[in-house]
Amino acid sequence: MRIIEFPKRENWDSLIERPSALSESTARDVAEILSAVRQHGDEAIRRISQKFDKCVPDTFAVSDSELLAVRQCISPDLKTAIATAYDNIRRFHQLADTAEYEIETFPGVFCGRKRIPIERVGLYIPAGSAPLFSTVLMLAIPAKLAGCEEIIMCSPPSGDGTIDAATLYAASLCGVSRIYKIGGAQAIAAMTFGTETVPKVDKIFGPGNRYVTEAKLQILRYGVAIDMPAGPSELLVIADDTCRPDFVAADLLSQAEHGPDSQVILLTESKELAGKIIEQIEQQIADLQRRDIAFASLANSAAIILRSIEECLDFSNLYAPEHLILAVENAGQAALRIKNAGSVFIGNYACESAGDYASGTNHTLPTGGAARGFSGVTTESFMKTITFQRITSKGISQLAPTIETMAAAEGLEAHRRAAAIRRKEVEK
Amino acid sequence: MRIIEFPKRENWDSLIERPSALSESTARDVAEILSAVRQHGDEAIRRISQKFDKCVPDTFAVSDSELLAVRQCISPDLKTAIATAYDNIRRFHQLADTAEYEIETFPGVFCGRKRIPIERVGLYIPAGSAPLFSTVLMLAIPAKLAGCEEIIMCSPPSGDGTIDAATLYAASLCGVSRIYKIGGAQAIAAMTFGTETVPKVDKIFGPGNRYVTEAKLQILRYGVAIDMPAGPSELLVIADDTCRPDFVAADLLSQAEHGPDSQVILLTESKELAGKIIEQIEQQIADLQRRDIAFASLANSAAIILRSIEECLDFSNLYAPEHLILAVENAGQAALRIKNAGSVFIGNYACESAGDYASGTNHTLPTGGAARGFSGVTTESFMKTITFQRITSKGISQLAPTIETMAAAEGLEAHRRAAAIRRKEVEK
Repeated sequence: MRIIEFPKRENWDSLIERPSALSESTARDVAEILSAVRQHGDEAIRRISQKFDKCVPDTFAVSDSELLAVRQCISPDLKTAIATAYDNIRRFHQLADTAEYEIETFPGVFCGRKRIPIERVGLYIPAGSAPLFSTVLMLAIPAKLAGCEEIIMCSPPSGDGTIDAATLYAASLCGVSRIYKIGGAQAIAAMTFGTETVPKVDKIFGPGNRYVTEAKLQILRYGVAIDMPAGPSELLVIADDTCRPDFVAADLLSQAEHGPDSQVILLTESKELAGKIIEQIEQQIADLQRRDIAFASLANSAAIILRSIEECLDFSNLYAPEHLILAVENAGQAALRIKNAGSVFIGNYACESAGDYASGTNHTLPTGGAARGFSGVTTESFMKTITFQRITSKGISQLAPTIETMAAAEGLEAHRRAAAIRRKEVEK
Repeated sequence: MRIIEFPKRENWDSLIERPSALSESTARDVAEILSAVRQHGDEAIRRISQKFDKCVPDTFAVSDSELLAVRQCISPDLKTAIATAYDNIRRFHQLADTAEYEIETFPGVFCGRKRIPIERVGLYIPAGSAPLFSTVLMLAIPAKLAGCEEIIMCSPPSGDGTIDAATLYAASLCGVSRIYKIGGAQAIAAMTFGTETVPKVDKIFGPGNRYVTEAKLQILRYGVAIDMPAGPSELLVIADDTCRPDFVAADLLSQAEHGPDSQVILLTESKELAGKIIEQIEQQIADLQRRDIAFASLANSAAIILRSIEECLDFSNLYAPEHLILAVENAGQAALRIKNAGSVFIGNYACESAGDYASGTNHTLPTGGAARGFSGVTTESFMKTITFQRITSKGISQLAPTIETMAAAEGLEAHRRAAAIRRKEVEK
């Protein structure tokens, strides 16, 4: 982890750059996969999975007996932990807002809106170096709270043709409708176009490798919505002398172990503190299982020394981190200055892994600076807003002149007439 | 406009298909434009605009004096109409919801969220066959209400190097920060990467031709958000004997005049009624300025006769129209059954052009069936949701076992330790 001291503001733009994982060759490969699945359905999925995953289960759909069987494989401790996380995530996400209202915008003109659940949603749950059953909770709980009718899930099978037991257990607990053992871009394609086995969905959620991310970008052409383009995970920590260097080091490592392409950034005004934290990282990394991944990730990472906490906050807002830990004095006050971030962890006891698993907030968050314009997943992500209007005869007769003048100015005569024909009828 | 009688349910899928305007050659052209603007900035924009638009203004930025000058060009009637529309749109959009709350999800664990304005937004205002100053109102009013710091606007100049006066007037009225005379994919590229002249933005809104739509899809790779992938406009009308055939015909024509690729669909249980409405269309189209466009559009369109209004509502939910008019008895009740639509117009007096211009709802809506998973533009579209959490020492010590068990089950040891190190400290 390199230390960068007092970089000039004009150099910040280069410091906030993240490497892009997407490439033209990935785009071409994925376009071919989409096209094959669109044309040949299950047969194409079978062929592609054979090629990339070296494993094709006999049937893609997870059976009820498989779902029942996994219950035996989950330890009581893990069941209790999942139940606690489930409760907290549910409690936080049920405060979603249906935004239902109607107002009279103009005499006789009543405009309203409401959020309506998206009927069919698809969840993609990756299973690379680690099974991610926590992501099932993070996606299926808000989907259920939103009222989605069908919750479809795809996850790649491991070498023996099964999906990790905890992933299936979580899916079953959360009321996922149907689960398929399909991974990669072919899973995204299956949920986009529908196949003999997999139903077509209206919106697809979830993280994944670069093929999955590329596929999610390409399917927008087919009118299917996505949660966000998710890239490698990242954490930015702002720390001052009130922090605990061992806590901060543990947090930076918890992010670094995600993948070799993860990035962690430490911002502080004290080079001495940065040194202490790096020392702690060196100590704590020694016996870490995923040490090699963490090392690779730390090589992309930096401790940046800035003039003040104010400047750290400015830098962070420019960087727009997926996760932001504020380990500073008056962290609550500092949080009020945050403009761009996925999720903010305030104070010494709010570790990122609390939000990753169990505090209640969602861990599906925008990465790579996308937090400037994107939000993390919320219950509202599983709904869409529809507007409604009803207009009385008096309302249209009084609003028509406005519509007619504007339509005429835009040269859209038929638009003008649609209002005029009603006005004339009322005026009769 | 062809009449289709009692299509079987298994054939509905083919009836709801819309032609895709995007193609591989458009994708390639747009990729080249993005790459050129990214590398060469203003110079590339100048070159590309010269090639496609045959018009490059001396300076891209609209000057204050230009903005002042257009005020003289707007008739008092149009000023009054724009003011009325502005008021109604503002009134409807200010009911946005900041979704700010904090709850204690678990003893000592406080999770909250709030919506925060997106700092810099870009609005694309097309100017093809018709100037679309109404779109300025629909995008800039919610952007301002959301609290966006910078509202950038791009619109293609006409042959004489100017932007339509009403468009500039509306932009000025709504507080757009800066306006540039740039159109097409190069405008989207400019706002994505930033150039010597045009600032980089965080999210881009607005309709456009297939180059603009393709560019909006491609820039998602660079972490810039978009409102939605917008395609050709469309209207579905469900009508029964309580409708006014002349009103319905006027509405269908108001949509048909948008562009030759627009689609209008009439659903009814009565072939006789369909005949009356088509007769009215034939009468009303005769002296329409944009008759040729409307004719072309009607050739893609259909009147579909179904068994019941129930069936019409089912078909409409499958079709997921951008605009839906319910010209039926008890239209308010029918509206409650709508699952997929951009904006719904209830009853005989709610014409689509009311929503297009002046009733208050937004006219930037999902097309091509995307209303199944996408929403129209709302004030919240100009904000993002950030989650926050603070945890007390007691909170982390009691939640840590849950986090530790789950992290261990996912094989993420450093995640486990970040919770454990805090728990141990508290337990000391």
